Amino acid sequence: MEKPYVIGIDIGGTNTIFGIVDAGGTIVESGSIKTGEYPEIGAYVAALAASLQEMIQQVGGKENIRGIGVGAPMGNYFSGCIDGAVNLPWKGTIPFAQLISDKTGGIPAAITNDANAAAMGEMAYGAARGMKDFIVIALGTGVGSGIVIGGKIVYGHDGFAGELGHVIMRRENGRMCGCGRAGCLEAYTSATGVARTAKELLETRSDESLLRNLDPATLTSKDVFEAAMQGDKLSIEIFEMTGEILGEAFADFIAFSSPEAIILFGGLTKAGDLLLNPIRRSMDKNVLSSYCGKIKLLVSQLKESDAAILGASALGWEA
Amino acid sequence: MEKPYVIGIDIGGTNTIFGIVDAGGTIVESGSIKTGEYPEIGAYVAALAASLQEMIQQVGGKENIRGIGVGAPMGNYFSGCIDGAVNLPWKGTIPFAQLISDKTGGIPAAITNDANAAAMGEMAYGAARGMKDFIVIALGTGVGSGIVIGGKIVYGHDGFAGELGHVIMRRENGRMCGCGRAGCLEAYTSATGVARTAKELLETRSDESLLRNLDPATLTSKDVFEAAMQGDKLSIEIFEMTGEILGEAFADFIAFSSPEAIILFGGLTKAGDLLLNPIRRSMDKNVLSSYCGKIKLLVSQLKESDAAILGASALGWEA
Repeated sequence: MEKPYVIGIDIGGTNTIFGIVDAGGTIVESGSIKTGEYPEIGAYVAALAASLQEMIQQVGGKENIRGIGVGAPMGNYFSGCIDGAVNLPWKGTIPFAQLISDKTGGIPAAITNDANAAAMGEMAYGAARGMKDFIVIALGTGVGSGIVIGGKIVYGHDGFAGELGHVIMRRENGRMCGCGRAGCLEAYTSATGVARTAKELLETRSDESLLRNLDPATLTSKDVFEAAMQGDKLSIEIFEMTGEILGEAFADFIAFSSPEAIILFGGLTKAGDLLLNPIRRSMDKNVLSSYCGKIKLLVSQLKESDAAILGASALGWEA
Repeated sequence: MEKPYVIGIDIGGTNTIFGIVDAGGTIVESGSIKTGEYPEIGAYVAALAASLQEMIQQVGGKENIRGIGVGAPMGNYFSGCIDGAVNLPWKGTIPFAQLISDKTGGIPAAITNDANAAAMGEMAYGAARGMKDFIVIALGTGVGSGIVIGGKIVYGHDGFAGELGHVIMRRENGRMCGCGRAGCLEAYTSATGVARTAKELLETRSDESLLRNLDPATLTSKDVFEAAMQGDKLSIEIFEMTGEILGEAFADFIAFSSPEAIILFGGLTKAGDLLLNPIRRSMDKNVLSSYCGKIKLLVSQLKESDAAILGASALGWEA
């Protein structure tokens, strides 16, 4: 008997990456195409399917593929569609699961958003192995979340649950968020939010900082991280402020679902203890006493380059 | 074949009420004992079991009882225990499900907290019939919550999920809450919270109000309701403030689990549109646009006198 495999596809605004994954979580084949080069969805699916077909032959044909899992912004598990994703070239509602299944000879396909895919990846191959109740918080350009309760992703009534980047953390004079509201968690604790905090502090304060040597217009969270690693006090304070807000938010999430762990994922987690220590302090300070000390704060164990494919592929087993 | 029944027991600080319920949600037998008269748990369980035995005979014996469901403060579904409930006479951890099962000849028993029991009651017999994703918010002396996702109560990793009365709504100068922290939803939107808002407004403002004829020390949410019904502007404003905070909180809850409905339960819901209209306005104003207009705001359809028994009994079918 041949080994069973799944296919994972991660659709990003710039690149689409994909791979074939075995039951142990090893990526045995992988590839990528440029999402932006296909303004028309039909041409995109055709190019993607052509690349997949080659890889499928390498593992002995489609009989060995159990399913295709797709992670995409605004990917809806219930409908199988991508629904008006602003960062992708295609407008309106795209029945992506159906399209890719049809073009690969009927391999069953399922889709969800990227943060849910990350949560599935952690559960199947990462920090959440053996857990049934946890929350993945993806700290990237935005703040995404994947919530698992009783071993299942929480999709909600309409498939769009888990928008924890958009709980309101500052109800007075909150920062404007890309969603059109003010004070969202994402506006403060995404990579972009960290850069905004840096710019605000540099403008409103006068203390010395390595960040003052940089052009504020192009300042990134990576600059703040590098300065903090060199002992820059202002930069360390920026991570403390970021961690404090995350800890406040996590205390509320815990009151909702009482998870075993909160797992951090994404570029900002490279800051390590610069960010984790303030989060832990803030969680302990803000959480209801009956939960205190019970919830683990973990960082994704998946290699960043593999995580997106692994996460999406985990959904393939259910497709 | 005899009809199948379940037993529902609601343990409150003052009274314990219980009943036998059929599959259609009709309470066919019911009774009560005074919780406070039994400082010793053994005597309490014995008295409760004696009352239950009489009722069980009325429906043809324990063969016709599928299970016992119990709603109690700090009732833990996973352990079957009541765990340090401050409003009950018994200290420490009480293995209540086991105790009552033993004393009724081995009828299987399960326990959960009162808000979760309310959610089960709504799903089995009330406003949430046919729904799989909804949140019950109990607005009583405190603010409790029962969360249902995919047709199942969310217990969380440790059995204590769903403490939505203790998300933080005011992070600066928040009101002290009974939990020891400040700014909790419960501190503003429980019946007690409404009375506190009234006292605060009466102290800090000078406008006319019917409430000024009452003793501020004994003012209740019922007084505020009655004054509002007579057109008292300050009292109407108190419900508007309460509804605004609830709507803000609900917007965050929606971002978590994207429910089909939020169902209000408890004494404060008697205020009707005085409270519901401000909640609706605030939800619409605060919710992420992708959820706007999708989530129903409903009031419990269970008769208040029956709700506690029905809710607990619904758990009996799973016991």
